[in-house]
Amino acid sequence: MNISIIQMNSTDNKKKNLNKASSFIKKCVKEDADIVCLPETFNWLGPEDEKPAQSEPIPGQTSELLLSLAHKYKIFILAGSIIESRDNNKKCSNTSLLLGPENEIHGKYRKIHLFDAEVDGTQYRESKYVIPGKEIVTASADDLICGLSICYDLRFPELYRALSKKDAEIIFAPSAFTASTGEAHWETLVRARAIENQVLMIAPAQVGTDKAGKTYHGHSMIVDPWGTVLTEMDGRSEGIKTVDIDLEKIKEIRSQMPVLKHRRLSTD
Amino acid sequence: MNISIIQMNSTDNKKKNLNKASSFIKKCVKEDADIVCLPETFNWLGPEDEKPAQSEPIPGQTSELLLSLAHKYKIFILAGSIIESRDNNKKCSNTSLLLGPENEIHGKYRKIHLFDAEVDGTQYRESKYVIPGKEIVTASADDLICGLSICYDLRFPELYRALSKKDAEIIFAPSAFTASTGEAHWETLVRARAIENQVLMIAPAQVGTDKAGKTYHGHSMIVDPWGTVLTEMDGRSEGIKTVDIDLEKIKEIRSQMPVLKHRRLSTD
Repeated sequence: MNISIIQMNSTDNKKKNLNKASSFIKKCVKEDADIVCLPETFNWLGPEDEKPAQSEPIPGQTSELLLSLAHKYKIFILAGSIIESRDNNKKCSNTSLLLGPENEIHGKYRKIHLFDAEVDGTQYRESKYVIPGKEIVTASADDLICGLSICYDLRFPELYRALSKKDAEIIFAPSAFTASTGEAHWETLVRARAIENQVLMIAPAQVGTDKAGKTYHGHSMIVDPWGTVLTEMDGRSEGIKTVDIDLEKIKEIRSQMPVLKHRRLSTD
Repeated sequence: MNISIIQMNSTDNKKKNLNKASSFIKKCVKEDADIVCLPETFNWLGPEDEKPAQSEPIPGQTSELLLSLAHKYKIFILAGSIIESRDNNKKCSNTSLLLGPENEIHGKYRKIHLFDAEVDGTQYRESKYVIPGKEIVTASADDLICGLSICYDLRFPELYRALSKKDAEIIFAPSAFTASTGEAHWETLVRARAIENQVLMIAPAQVGTDKAGKTYHGHSMIVDPWGTVLTEMDGRSEGIKTVDIDLEKIKEIRSQMPVLKHRRLSTD
């Protein structure tokens, strides 16, 4: 099974972002992708206070476009995240979708952990406009059970444990990590989630600088259940990477070191 | 506050191990250590089936010696782990102690997660002779709240979340990681626990080969709450490292990015 990740430098021009995403998806299809994964907020990235106005319903413009591409190319598409309108566009959610080739939404996950932090003097207040999700979501891509998460969720290992308990074999973590927290934490967190849950981590990310002047870490990666980085992009350019993943390795590793069976503390 | 870590290549000769540990502790005191930390099974390391016979009660020979040193030097000592006798020496526990300068045991933690795994064709069956602990343990060193864990526990993030919820500011992870799992996972897991809980991780480890032919990763390290490796030893030699830790940094990082306050999923 081939999984492609797309690294983007999204802007506040939704039409251009969707054209670019469509073009990248087409390139992934040429690499025989079965699942194509877009980063967080791939369809719109700009100042926080413009988010509600830029949000859209689901189903809506972005999901309809990607569903048509999934159907056309007979692939699964992870819409890393879409700014979903809530409360008549006064608020929104940061929502990730797994879309299937038969024109169906297989999973819809609203980001649970919102990024309210100060990084290098810049304030991030995602919760000002975003309503957090409450549900832990897995979705199937054919026989494969996929867990859904987004960016800042990576700092909360309890979510990944919960996804593992729901039998996730691969977990998506589409992201827009800041450049400085990414430099310090990105690879360690993505790899740790893979190692401790013995799952594949699929982490497409934003790169470059957005209209609000925020700079992103890039380094989109796919990590295998032993924690080995199967592919990693750089911190400068947009692009795609495709990896032929080995699902048998999950069984082999879990058989030799049954970490999930050795759990003795509840995380419910 | 100065914390020292000791990297050892322990043998199945307890007397020699204790002499060596005493000598290393003295060296740490010369570096003005306030807390000196020994690795897992520092006082005896050999074939699994010899463990019960080599176990000892607590209080007992090893704890009494270290208490006397803690008292003499006016320091805290982490007895990374001692093979503690259980069931009249038919079984044992893998037990870590934090010992104080007033001649008292401040904390006693029995390893919860036991290492039953196959690594490079070698079988590890820690549970064959070891009775696992059930209690999550913090202990105070003056005003500092310390969390206790041991080696394979590192693969279970839920334990470190539980320790953080008990207000641990530093967490000990004395270890005897195998060379190959250490190469693949050690640094990532130790750093991830520091980053996601915004705590200092103190990880003294075994190095070299033991009598049973098992080889250990070494690379003892101290990691700050931002995930920065403050000191790391090599994968070959015994020795000590002392770091002047900055507890203010925990408050600063937790104020700028309040990850623990952002938790939205229960881990109870």
